[in-house]
Amino acid sequence: MKYYKVAVLGATGLVGREMIKILEERNFPIKQLKLLASNRSAGKKISFKGEKLQVESCNESSFQNVDIALFSAGNEAGKYFGKIAAHNGTLVIDNSSAFRMDKAVPLVVPEVNAADILNHNGIIANPNCSTIQLVLVLKPIYDEVGINRLVISTYQSVSGTGKKAIQELLEQSEAILSESGFQPKIYPHQIAFNVLPHIDKFENNGYTREEMKLIYETRKIFHDEDIKITATTVRVPVIIGHSESVYLETGQNILLADLKQLMNIAPGVKLVDDPENNIYPLPIISKFEDEVMVGRIRQDLDLNNGFNLWIVGNNLRKGAALNAVQIAEHVINSFK
Amino acid sequence: MKYYKVAVLGATGLVGREMIKILEERNFPIKQLKLLASNRSAGKKISFKGEKLQVESCNESSFQNVDIALFSAGNEAGKYFGKIAAHNGTLVIDNSSAFRMDKAVPLVVPEVNAADILNHNGIIANPNCSTIQLVLVLKPIYDEVGINRLVISTYQSVSGTGKKAIQELLEQSEAILSESGFQPKIYPHQIAFNVLPHIDKFENNGYTREEMKLIYETRKIFHDEDIKITATTVRVPVIIGHSESVYLETGQNILLADLKQLMNIAPGVKLVDDPENNIYPLPIISKFEDEVMVGRIRQDLDLNNGFNLWIVGNNLRKGAALNAVQIAEHVINSFK
Repeated sequence: MKYYKVAVLGATGLVGREMIKILEERNFPIKQLKLLASNRSAGKKISFKGEKLQVESCNESSFQNVDIALFSAGNEAGKYFGKIAAHNGTLVIDNSSAFRMDKAVPLVVPEVNAADILNHNGIIANPNCSTIQLVLVLKPIYDEVGINRLVISTYQSVSGTGKKAIQELLEQSEAILSESGFQPKIYPHQIAFNVLPHIDKFENNGYTREEMKLIYETRKIFHDEDIKITATTVRVPVIIGHSESVYLETGQNILLADLKQLMNIAPGVKLVDDPENNIYPLPIISKFEDEVMVGRIRQDLDLNNGFNLWIVGNNLRKGAALNAVQIAEHVINSFK
Repeated sequence: MKYYKVAVLGATGLVGREMIKILEERNFPIKQLKLLASNRSAGKKISFKGEKLQVESCNESSFQNVDIALFSAGNEAGKYFGKIAAHNGTLVIDNSSAFRMDKAVPLVVPEVNAADILNHNGIIANPNCSTIQLVLVLKPIYDEVGINRLVISTYQSVSGTGKKAIQELLEQSEAILSESGFQPKIYPHQIAFNVLPHIDKFENNGYTREEMKLIYETRKIFHDEDIKITATTVRVPVIIGHSESVYLETGQNILLADLKQLMNIAPGVKLVDDPENNIYPLPIISKFEDEVMVGRIRQDLDLNNGFNLWIVGNNLRKGAALNAVQIAEHVINSFK
């Protein structure tokens, strides 16, 4: 078996730490793990397989002899170091949106479009958290009967923003419970006991970038520009786990029972759908789940080809770190 | 000016107390206010226009000589006392779902279908909170270009369930922040830092009653059984204020600017739509708003007649108590 020199850029962030945990859990064949971050975080120590590894400050020569680099460091650092690393021969799997819509860069969820991995030129993009859990559930439906349109409303947790947003939610909650004051810092408005129909920046068309990501990334992953998609993305006071209320219209009719059966066998997907016993996907459960959960599956009462789904995924794991590691696994398996 | 003997049944509940406040705020022409509740709450005192009124236990003879009774006491009490009171000649405005789909009972949002009030037989039903804020926003659009279909996802606050649910949310939040244990009582699962795709009971078709209320009540209020409606209703850890992500398809095309202009002049509706300055409807603002807020209005990027709206309303006031008092005002104005 071959062993690889692996780097994690953004090692001290929520997703970076999860990447390191997952590399360990899945016993990724590593001969050396290099932890990289900004100057600010350099010197911190993070455990990996019983060893304390010191985080190094990332610079232009950090990727020499690195085989695979997992990036979770935002768009700017992703773009800058991604190009340098790829140029050095490192395979970069980037979790930012810097390269996602670049035609030369595959955008991959392994269970959905693993074949696209082969077309990489040194960089593979990890889709946005809300896209990953969506396409994973849609894939078997798409293959079986096609998908004409999607109307999506999301309920996204604050961990999607990062550590400081979790802290802000907890501190605001505490301030409100103790009736003391606070000043929103990470979000433009109070997030505790509130919901914000605003994730990422607003585009000129009135949609947020987060909403546009769902549209563009889904179409790119399915190689299908004809799926009609519209979305409203909303931040909710949840710590981990993104939920999505998804209305879909299939191309051909399908029986509800058959659609549920598709979910039952879909890779990476867990059918959690027994409402009579109060069993349906919940963000608090997703903390312990690598599979994306789908439930509350029901047919539109007016349209035979219309269905509602409730999809919940762990945005830090399958929505980010796990998917990136799975891409890396596919790459090394294709070397064999 | 005529003055009325008014009763409030369920006077100690969240909505009942709001009804009493609103009767005072709007200076409803009252000669005597009778506060009624279950045995358990009898004896409590509630302020009205500077006086402390004692809550009486409701019984079969409570409505003698009462002109108008505002009910917020649930389905069973609503049905039982509603029939008795109406039989006695009291006009009952009931906030439960007991009579809403009864063909002999008007279901009214005054700004939308005030004319229906005239057809009452002693009972008028107040729609569900999530329906009221929806139809208020849709009304001018419906009148101008028609509405073919609606796909709705809600973000509903715990005050819709009642006082004990607010207490549960606050206590659970505190327990989680202090890392102590708790047992869900009001909801089947933890509601703090979580979202529940489950409001009211599940029907055999997989939809919840709350989802079916949105469908049936909207059609009844518009007198239009042809509007295609599908909904997912979700409880979120918010104290007051229901939010709705609404996708709609109009009958005829309409320009985005014209649709916004309709919202600008719609009675009971406030356009809150300046995303570039982080201005959009939020549940925490709805606490101070009697108008239903609409924002994030944008056109579907694939369909000319498709639009997304974000609608937020105060579920205790316009979503319940205020609408009931407004119905009463319409009734007494039609007596004149």
